[in-house]
Amino acid sequence: MIDYEDASPEVRAIFDDIRDTRQTEYINNFWKALAHDPATLKSTWLAVKSVMAPGALDALTKELIYLAVSTTNGCNYCIASHTVGAINKGMTPEMFGEVMAVTALANSTNRLANGYQVPVDAAFRQS
Amino acid sequence: MIDYEDASPEVRAIFDDIRDTRQTEYINNFWKALAHDPATLKSTWLAVKSVMAPGALDALTKELIYLAVSTTNGCNYCIASHTVGAINKGMTPEMFGEVMAVTALANSTNRLANGYQVPVDAAFRQS
Amino acid sequence: MIDYEDASPEVRAIFDDIRDTRQTEYINNFWKALAHDPATLKSTWLAVKSVMAPGALDALTKELIYLAVSTTNGCNYCIASHTVGAINKGMTPEMFGEVMAVTALANSTNRLANGYQVPVDAAFRQS
Amino acid sequence: MIDYEDASPEVRAIFDDIRDTRQTEYINNFWKALAHDPATLKSTWLAVKSVMAPGALDALTKELIYLAVSTTNGCNYCIASHTVGAINKGMTPEMFGEVMAVTALANSTNRLANGYQVPVDAAFRQS
Amino acid sequence: MIDYEDASPEVRAIFDDIRDTRQTEYINNFWKALAHDPATLKSTWLAVKSVMAPGALDALTKELIYLAVSTTNGCNYCIASHTVGAINKGMTPEMFGEVMAVTALANSTNRLANGYQVPVDAAFRQS
Amino acid sequence: MIDYEDASPEVRAIFDDIRDTRQTEYINNFWKALAHDPATLKSTWLAVKSVMAPGALDALTKELIYLAVSTTNGCNYCIASHTVGAINKGMTPEMFGEVMAVTALANSTNRLANGYQVPVDAAFRQS
Repeated sequence: MIDYEDASPEVRAIFDDIRDTRQTEYINNFWKALAHDPATLKSTWLAVKSVMAPGALDALTKELIYLAVSTTNGCNYCIASHTVGAINKGMTPEMFGEVMAVTALANSTNRLANGYQVPVDAAFRQS
Repeated sequence: MIDYEDASPEVRAIFDDIRDTRQTEYINNFWKALAHDPATLKSTWLAVKSVMAPGALDALTKELIYLAVSTTNGCNYCIASHTVGAINKGMTPEMFGEVMAVTALANSTNRLANGYQVPVDAAFRQS
Repeated sequence: MIDYEDASPEVRAIFDDIRDTRQTEYINNFWKALAHDPATLKSTWLAVKSVMAPGALDALTKELIYLAVSTTNGCNYCIASHTVGAINKGMTPEMFGEVMAVTALANSTNRLANGYQVPVDAAFRQS
Repeated sequence: MIDYEDASPEVRAIFDDIRDTRQTEYINNFWKALAHDPATLKSTWLAVKSVMAPGALDALTKELIYLAVSTTNGCNYCIASHTVGAINKGMTPEMFGEVMAVTALANSTNRLANGYQVPVDAAFRQS
Repeated sequence: MIDYEDASPEVRAIFDDIRDTRQTEYINNFWKALAHDPATLKSTWLAVKSVMAPGALDALTKELIYLAVSTTNGCNYCIASHTVGAINKGMTPEMFGEVMAVTALANSTNRLANGYQVPVDAAFRQS
Repeated sequence: MIDYEDASPEVRAIFDDIRDTRQTEYINNFWKALAHDPATLKSTWLAVKSVMAPGALDALTKELIYLAVSTTNGCNYCIASHTVGAINKGMTPEMFGEVMAVTALANSTNRLANGYQVPVDAAFRQS
């Protein structure tokens, strides 16, 4: 991983923007690892910054969706970091429990729909 | 698939509860397929009814999480049915676009974290 | 897809072995598609023939496991073909229902274990 | 994680049922983690108790299916715990080897069917 | 889906860039669907344009990797479109067969490594 | 795990072939774990030896595809071992960065195609 002190000016500029945007000096390991590929570091950070900003959905709802996807995929790093991220944005233990319950349920019913080979209802088809 | 008319009393009772709860006569194909196994039909419906009800998270947020998980898993039936379900609960086109954007981003960064073998920050570890 | 009539001698030999082993003239689409790559056709068929044969587990149990994995992965072709394959080996509707219920449950609890970041019990660790 | 001593009466009742059902004092970490959300703890335990009980399939076969799904999903906790669970229900090393071989094969052929875009045979389609 | 004729100037500008870059009038359905969310359309197209351009890896190799990932995920649209895309960049039937064989093998051995709980060799660990 | 010294003649023969083929004394943990099931050890090794050998695609391209699939599946062992394997076959840091970028992009667009329910273009359909 590449620390701020050892980073190129290009990488430092991204690290500075992460710090400014998040209002913290802390750069987490994900970004330090991506720093090995400045182009991916930059595009990934800009995507996170843009996509996770409040819009039609608030920032917390977006974090909960992110956590549900990461939990489905079994990405340990992402689960750990986005659990903390969601708590920082206001996720309560009750909300966490409900995100997990919905995620578990969806993963269950997704397989029932697969295995029973359920045809899509005409009412659900896009014209 | 088993229609209401051909269903056993046990299955009809579940179908009746689905209709009451959802305030519609329509029983979608998922439940008609599960009707082949009344025990799974019942437990799955009770789980959906309980987990998807408003709690610390509102019903729409839960639908969005469900849609994000189904999209991640590529379950066509579930994507189609829960897109309609979310619209019925108030999802706007802008919200849909943001759910998709967050889901796509999380699937992307999950793999970057995997492939770069990023160690979990001490700050993110559960004590 | 490549039919028997249009197949090379190399491919025909595999098709003949499929017919002999399965005691049917019918060659399903999976093999006809793989016939475009005779090396993969051959190695895949030999693996199926060997792995799915009765051993410590009987042939039906192996089909049920195959179906559970295919259902988890959402492979429509494999779900359709192995559901029929399992029925041909003796799967009853009750067994099918239980395979689906276990598959759905495992997909659910897998995500709960992920999301709650449950550490492996010492009792479960391999020495 | 929440130990029995620190658990609410509601959680203790579930822990007691786990101990009774499994005939062991040991409560594994999965349940101690879920104890943070008593509703999910209860519904998950009741589902496990019901779905994994012998029915048309015996308890060992169900454990093998569970293990195959967990292996497909790469859930480390679930693989570790259900490997031990299966051994306790009679899984021999030979059976374990065959579950792994079938799981690996299905994961392989699932992708061949995907990538070759194999159309489902009419013979495999549900009417 | 949104056709060029019905698109906003913002979307048309992206469609024009897709046409220029790919040297074809044809806009495929993926982009027409994304046109419902111009921000995601733009960021996704710019990512595709940038990431899939020749670099340390040539454009064909990148297409083969894309196809392998899509095959692993079972994304039918992506498999169909990137198979054609790879053929247009020079993928021969032999190359396609080898991509499929490697993809199938990796999906198989990934599960063997999971299920056998193989510890990472010290020689493979990142310092 | 089973070391060479403790292995049966059948397993030793495979280990010898791995050593000869790879020109190294080192047998990695994956093979030592599979040694518990000599039939799977043998068939897996022969598949790896055959599929990963240079053909229409060179050995490095095959390793990159393998790495992309393993990264998609989140198989930590496979990511670690095949990253080293790819480096040994000539993968530069720039190539690694591009494999990760393509893998992340494909995982992202796979979900956009799923969630937007994009129909396959006639131009991409196989006749």
